[in-house]
Amino acid sequence: MPSVLGIHETIIYVAKLDAATEFYTGLLGLVAIGGALGPVGRAFRVPGGSVLLLFDPEQSIRNGRGIPAHGAIGPCHLAFSIESSEYEAWRARLDGAGVEIEQEQVWPGGARSLYFRDPDGNSVELMAGDFWAHRERDRESSSFPPSP
Amino acid sequence: MPSVLGIHETIIYVAKLDAATEFYTGLLGLVAIGGALGPVGRAFRVPGGSVLLLFDPEQSIRNGRGIPAHGAIGPCHLAFSIESSEYEAWRARLDGAGVEIEQEQVWPGGARSLYFRDPDGNSVELMAGDFWAHRERDRESSSFPPSP
Repeated sequence: MPSVLGIHETIIYVAKLDAATEFYTGLLGLVAIGGALGPVGRAFRVPGGSVLLLFDPEQSIRNGRGIPAHGAIGPCHLAFSIESSEYEAWRARLDGAGVEIEQEQVWPGGARSLYFRDPDGNSVELMAGDFWAHRERDRESSSFPPSP
Repeated sequence: MPSVLGIHETIIYVAKLDAATEFYTGLLGLVAIGGALGPVGRAFRVPGGSVLLLFDPEQSIRNGRGIPAHGAIGPCHLAFSIESSEYEAWRARLDGAGVEIEQEQVWPGGARSLYFRDPDGNSVELMAGDFWAHRERDRESSSFPPSP
């Protein structure tokens, strides 16, 4: 049986393409792939080799672009991995940039997350450690949603 | 400046949780993380270390789960990487499973993609090679949308 190697493209939907580009490059350090997608969206190289795509759903849902159409309305979510040793530096960076930290979460097993919103209201998470590895090892003692 | 290590969680939205689970495990070979998320969604380990989350948007948009709410309506998109040597095997596997291949695409630079839909109509892509690496190297000669 053939196998997948990993997720190559992660897509979230934004209407404010310029503001989102500044957010994902300037604040989060992703590298824009030049000239991508015209009015439909933007592409960014993510460390680890994958690509983040930001699509305007009103544009991308239309047919005629030459590839199958998609486009969703409402706040999406994605999580980036960060080093545990950089968790405090990330909190300080968000504070310094005036980005409201919506929530901090300590997960069973010790992973920690910072939650905030991009300019379109998408939920962005920075996770230090891997909560899911804990779930795989010890599913009986974990709960989701987490206990308060 | 702190840096992100990669995308840890990719999320798409589905209403048919059981059908989607069968699709992403049985057809695509992802491994379900047991007991995940109750009625809200499901989690799957993806080769390479990341996690795919399938959320019911009607459930996940509600507050009260203990983490920031999100949830989008409409067809989402994600792409998995595959080995170029397994492209034909993937086409045969989709055909054998009765999954309609919506489109095949040859990209500038030689990457190839298979497009099909999951049970909720999300656009799933299997990409052999990395179109984006070509874009980074040779942006002037690439176009998007691709020429017919």
